[in-house]
Amino acid sequence: LKTLASGVLKGDRVSISKAISSIEDRDENSRDLMSELYPRTGRALIVGITGPPGTGKSSLVNELAKVYRSKGKTVAILAVDPSSPISGGAILGDRVRMLDHSLDSGVYIRSMASRGDEGGLSRAARNAIRVLDAAGYDIVIVETVGIGQAEVEIVSVADLVIVVLMPELGDEVQAVKAGLMEIADIFAVNKSDLPGADKVIYNLHSILNSHDSSSQVALKVSAKTGMGIEELANKIDEFQKGEKTELRGKRKMKNLADELVRNVALNLFENAEARLKNDPQFKEIVAKVGERKLDPESATDLLVERLVDYSK
Amino acid sequence: LKTLASGVLKGDRVSISKAISSIEDRDENSRDLMSELYPRTGRALIVGITGPPGTGKSSLVNELAKVYRSKGKTVAILAVDPSSPISGGAILGDRVRMLDHSLDSGVYIRSMASRGDEGGLSRAARNAIRVLDAAGYDIVIVETVGIGQAEVEIVSVADLVIVVLMPELGDEVQAVKAGLMEIADIFAVNKSDLPGADKVIYNLHSILNSHDSSSQVALKVSAKTGMGIEELANKIDEFQKGEKTELRGKRKMKNLADELVRNVALNLFENAEARLKNDPQFKEIVAKVGERKLDPESATDLLVERLVDYSK
Repeated sequence: LKTLASGVLKGDRVSISKAISSIEDRDENSRDLMSELYPRTGRALIVGITGPPGTGKSSLVNELAKVYRSKGKTVAILAVDPSSPISGGAILGDRVRMLDHSLDSGVYIRSMASRGDEGGLSRAARNAIRVLDAAGYDIVIVETVGIGQAEVEIVSVADLVIVVLMPELGDEVQAVKAGLMEIADIFAVNKSDLPGADKVIYNLHSILNSHDSSSQVALKVSAKTGMGIEELANKIDEFQKGEKTELRGKRKMKNLADELVRNVALNLFENAEARLKNDPQFKEIVAKVGERKLDPESATDLLVERLVDYSK
Repeated sequence: LKTLASGVLKGDRVSISKAISSIEDRDENSRDLMSELYPRTGRALIVGITGPPGTGKSSLVNELAKVYRSKGKTVAILAVDPSSPISGGAILGDRVRMLDHSLDSGVYIRSMASRGDEGGLSRAARNAIRVLDAAGYDIVIVETVGIGQAEVEIVSVADLVIVVLMPELGDEVQAVKAGLMEIADIFAVNKSDLPGADKVIYNLHSILNSHDSSSQVALKVSAKTGMGIEELANKIDEFQKGEKTELRGKRKMKNLADELVRNVALNLFENAEARLKNDPQFKEIVAKVGERKLDPESATDLLVERLVDYSK
């Protein structure tokens, strides 16, 4: 294990991959691994990238990585795919484009499933970001698809969030008002080589102005033509140096507290599940609910009481 | 409270709406309400309808409800919307079309948010289905959007699942192989007035044949022209009478067990959250993690131990 942790700390790619797999599987080493690596985290800039499907997030990430490489910075990309089978295929397709970097040792790319049962960004993804941070990458880009919880939770791990949009998204840009609006530090309107980009920027500005969100910016970019990518990287640098850092620090403590509560709940759930499934009384209670002699909420109360009894 | 429960049992619409709101809010009455209503459930046919966004599920549900009404059956529709802001707008639009039924006392329509923090079909939605069942509706149609967990969990509450597809979905039909394939009893290819419907049916049949799923069927329908809707209703009747009933019974017990475990976990989580947030030691532990003196996994273990102590 010491070897695996020190491999990660040296930036050895095989060690990093093994470490992330260990965390994904939550095998017997993962816990010790995290306690060895965690003290060495906190150096990387964590950039979250999210947005609706089809906006070209992966291509944009790809181009952004190229800009950083040209500046001599190392980049790790963690692509968090929804577990949903429906969008799975398309995302896998995007991933293929990333092969551009496959021979560059300064870029590490990994995709992970966002486990559906937890809803949102998984515990494993949070720890994988820490592995990449400890491995010494200058920039860790976390890419999630903007559906459900994962996109909003990206803000709880990232130093900076980029929401990717595109022209002619229609209703979806409207919907941005409701949810993605608050989490974005930068709106990147990708595919701005297509018509309609100015309209999206105009709409965004009018929304931003009505919210008095003076620190948020909207940029036209195109992963295809390379337009605006350098400017996007510069904006990221500005944010990193900017006065928002202190605010981020405070928010990070809150995020950490939330993460711990979630972890605790997940552990309690796993314990509860294992204990209940071995408890003959559990089967009897389920049978009673099946026969409608007991309702599910009262049954839940009975079971919670039993679990509290176990721990005595 | 007795009045509310008896109002629901009489099928009074105002009582039903109040009861579902009480369950959504988990107010002080909801628990007793469920214990009064639950023994009176089990009569309704619960039909789950899911599929990718844009396939016209709401319109199809609308037309299906009309067919049932023409047969003298009463219908309740529960539309479970994802909490995600992105798709929220479009779904709301669909809802408007349902105004068709607004003057018919034999149709009850309600939409609910699938709370993201639980991932999937919420506890409130499960109990709302029970309210509608107890209220005496012959058919309860539960409509979810096919992204994330909710669409797979529909199978855990429905007697029968209809997956809605449409021509020219492209990749998405492919993706059906992976996830929605197993949960569908009936594939309804909506918008079959458009070209390409036969190809979708052909593809579905070739997938179905390769999986030896002899009990699954694929139908061409069109909510717009009314094509195939009557046949769809007939297929639903056949399933209800068919030999799958016994299998469903066994699966229902498993689903009930899973629901209870999830409820227990949710209660434990809420207790944990409330207790931790009032625990001065919790803040200290979070601070240590922030200073990287303690890693998140070890901190989680410490906190779980503290919670077990509380319950002694």
